[in-house]
Amino acid sequence: MSSTRERLVIIGGDAAGMSAASQARRLKGPDELEIVAFERTHFTSYSACGIPYWVGGDVGDRDQLIARTPEQHREREIDLRTRTEVVRIDLAGRRVLARALDADEEYWTSYDKLVVATGARPVRPRLPGIDAPGVHGVQTLDDGQALLDTLARTPGRRAVVIGAGYIGVEMAEALIKRGYEVTVVNRGKEPMSTLDPDMGCLVHDAMTGMGIAMVNGTEVTKILTGADGRVRAVATEDAEYPADVVVLGIGVRPETTLAREAGLPLGEHGGLLTDLAMRVRGPEAGGVVWAGGDCVEVLDLVSGRERHIALGTHANKHGQVIGSNVGGGYATFPGVVGTAVSKVCDLEIARTGLREKDARAAGLQFVTVTIESTSRAGYYPGAALMTVKMLAERRTGRLLGVQIVGREGAGKRVDVAAVALTAQLTVEQMTALDLGYAPPFSPVWDPILVAARKAVAAVRADRD
Amino acid sequence: MSSTRERLVIIGGDAAGMSAASQARRLKGPDELEIVAFERTHFTSYSACGIPYWVGGDVGDRDQLIARTPEQHREREIDLRTRTEVVRIDLAGRRVLARALDADEEYWTSYDKLVVATGARPVRPRLPGIDAPGVHGVQTLDDGQALLDTLARTPGRRAVVIGAGYIGVEMAEALIKRGYEVTVVNRGKEPMSTLDPDMGCLVHDAMTGMGIAMVNGTEVTKILTGADGRVRAVATEDAEYPADVVVLGIGVRPETTLAREAGLPLGEHGGLLTDLAMRVRGPEAGGVVWAGGDCVEVLDLVSGRERHIALGTHANKHGQVIGSNVGGGYATFPGVVGTAVSKVCDLEIARTGLREKDARAAGLQFVTVTIESTSRAGYYPGAALMTVKMLAERRTGRLLGVQIVGREGAGKRVDVAAVALTAQLTVEQMTALDLGYAPPFSPVWDPILVAARKAVAAVRADRD
Repeated sequence: MSSTRERLVIIGGDAAGMSAASQARRLKGPDELEIVAFERTHFTSYSACGIPYWVGGDVGDRDQLIARTPEQHREREIDLRTRTEVVRIDLAGRRVLARALDADEEYWTSYDKLVVATGARPVRPRLPGIDAPGVHGVQTLDDGQALLDTLARTPGRRAVVIGAGYIGVEMAEALIKRGYEVTVVNRGKEPMSTLDPDMGCLVHDAMTGMGIAMVNGTEVTKILTGADGRVRAVATEDAEYPADVVVLGIGVRPETTLAREAGLPLGEHGGLLTDLAMRVRGPEAGGVVWAGGDCVEVLDLVSGRERHIALGTHANKHGQVIGSNVGGGYATFPGVVGTAVSKVCDLEIARTGLREKDARAAGLQFVTVTIESTSRAGYYPGAALMTVKMLAERRTGRLLGVQIVGREGAGKRVDVAAVALTAQLTVEQMTALDLGYAPPFSPVWDPILVAARKAVAAVRADRD
Repeated sequence: MSSTRERLVIIGGDAAGMSAASQARRLKGPDELEIVAFERTHFTSYSACGIPYWVGGDVGDRDQLIARTPEQHREREIDLRTRTEVVRIDLAGRRVLARALDADEEYWTSYDKLVVATGARPVRPRLPGIDAPGVHGVQTLDDGQALLDTLARTPGRRAVVIGAGYIGVEMAEALIKRGYEVTVVNRGKEPMSTLDPDMGCLVHDAMTGMGIAMVNGTEVTKILTGADGRVRAVATEDAEYPADVVVLGIGVRPETTLAREAGLPLGEHGGLLTDLAMRVRGPEAGGVVWAGGDCVEVLDLVSGRERHIALGTHANKHGQVIGSNVGGGYATFPGVVGTAVSKVCDLEIARTGLREKDARAAGLQFVTVTIESTSRAGYYPGAALMTVKMLAERRTGRLLGVQIVGREGAGKRVDVAAVALTAQLTVEQMTALDLGYAPPFSPVWDPILVAARKAVAAVRADRD
């Protein structure tokens, strides 16, 4: 068998890489396929999305965030090399140069098939003081541990979060739970720029109501440090916000340095571009390089354009698809509709499809409607208000996007719209959807249906 | 204008009838359309689905269950006649005979268009003792009040619920909340015959765990009464179950006596049959009779057959469609996929599409899979187990049905499957659905996706 045994090399041991490894192993045994995976850190297959809840205390222990340890992968005959960084890809020679970080040695490993799953890196603005003790990113488990150590050591109780996207608002919740006075400084007009500003405004009001100081439309200019060198405040053009700890929640970019240096083509968002089977496009890759997870751009099925979305659920799907294909099976990743859900304390925030500006950028004309409804029948205990905004295409009435801000029971309702977008339903078709109804679960018209009905009226009025 | 003014007559003042009235009124003013609605009871537009929660104490006041009172309808220029029962429909003469119950007088009213929205009537088995004091149905607000009066008057604390469908299990919860010892006597092998028995078995176990005595596979033979004439026990062939109060939760049938006597054709479930615009089929109706709500049969889009489903959410949609059409607009009700959701205390129960026996009856061959997953990321507090069963068609892999039994966060997940059924997605397409993911809302693979992946494997294995 050894003459036909192939070697699969994987760069990156988190969701996409190790899902690919596991799925490939399921399809091909070690006598047919050797799998070598390189991972820079000590950890594999962990939930970066869980870090805010670990920091906030909802999750007691770092190890709970680890879905599968290096040892567990090795038991399944995956040659996993942790603390080993790939520093070069030689596409022509079909080999990668790896550096064992603890041994400080480098060596080449050849591949028949290669998977690039290098993930994303957090945006870290070049600000004076950004590297001061007390300033933390929250991308890796090590970052999370370092932040927790700082929180344990620091007597002060003032925290500033820079950025008000998913990571920013989730970290605001985590720090509130730890008893901090939290200020969120945000460049956008409203928090959650993944929503339209009118919906972001509802998030702003709710966060303010939770006692979080919200500073919108403001650039941080520097991080100020004290005599001990530690952070003491965050400065903007107009003001200073005292801070015992600063958390960066500004977002991430595809980590594609290696790929770019190897000559692989990148998309306009800096991510790798793949075909539907997750194989890297272009002749440079020679048809034997796959990529997935936070380092790739994905097709947005609603706008027809590539986007970069760093999200564990996509990374897992990519890994599954790649593993099937490199393991001799067949699977594709058709694209995304841009669904995301998050929460700040009891506020639930969700979106799918296009915002107004996305729709305009895609050349679409549309109507928008916004409705208020409740999560349960109005008379049922715990019925909570939610606001649903819906975009529908002019004339055709095709659903283009939904945004939801509300309390318990609001967020996951976005899934109905996500499936409707995938199926390209019109808002008129949506009004007939047979959604689950009982008083503890929904009003007799589910909020999504209420929004769809109003959108139908708006599409009609626009036609007249 | 009076020469062109039409009269719309509506029989039945609950969800379907009054939604039709309201929508028609929105489209046409009183100078164009006169609307006369007859309602047998004192109440209009109330939530029968809310009665178990009123009886259980979650809803404090009967009036909370009334979405719109007779006065509110009358303010919108709808000539609503409560306590007035229609006793005959004369299709040839285009008129109905109404009886004013309090005045004890009868009169004919002619119509240009007629809406039959006579609802459903509860199944009431002809058992000895069924009419004894202490035996209650829970179909109308008056029924609910009568039951509450009995509960207030009766010192005993033993309740027997006959039937273990939605009404039965919801009433079991209500009586548990009122402090009763509850026994549920059920003809089926398991409770919730709207699920496959393997899923119903999970409901059985959970209800038993709540301290409810479950007696399955057993027919009630009579209701035993005491010397005072009140109920004292429920008897089956083998046993007697002492009861201070008995609740009938056996289900409902279409209330179509009037329609049948008038000569309108009925379907195999005893409901009226309509076209997609909700107009009653056949020459007898003369093209001017509409019907909707619990008295009609609806098209099941998955099996291609007519079904009877008594559910407020459908009745409201029917009313909306009828009101649009009789008001000169255009709307259709394309059918249902059979979605239903319910709960017993903290147990959530949901289904959509076909059960195994439905699929077989429809001539479909299928594979089934069952998975366990959690409502949130496994490490996130409150992550609760749920079981998801999925049916997919052999060869094509088209989704045929989903059943879910779990705790908080389980029930409304069925909506994803409901939309997928409507869009006729395959389970393979479902594995790529972009559902909302964040640790407080879902594992990285949503339970529906876990089931879809397993179903894909089963469809493939079946092909091989």
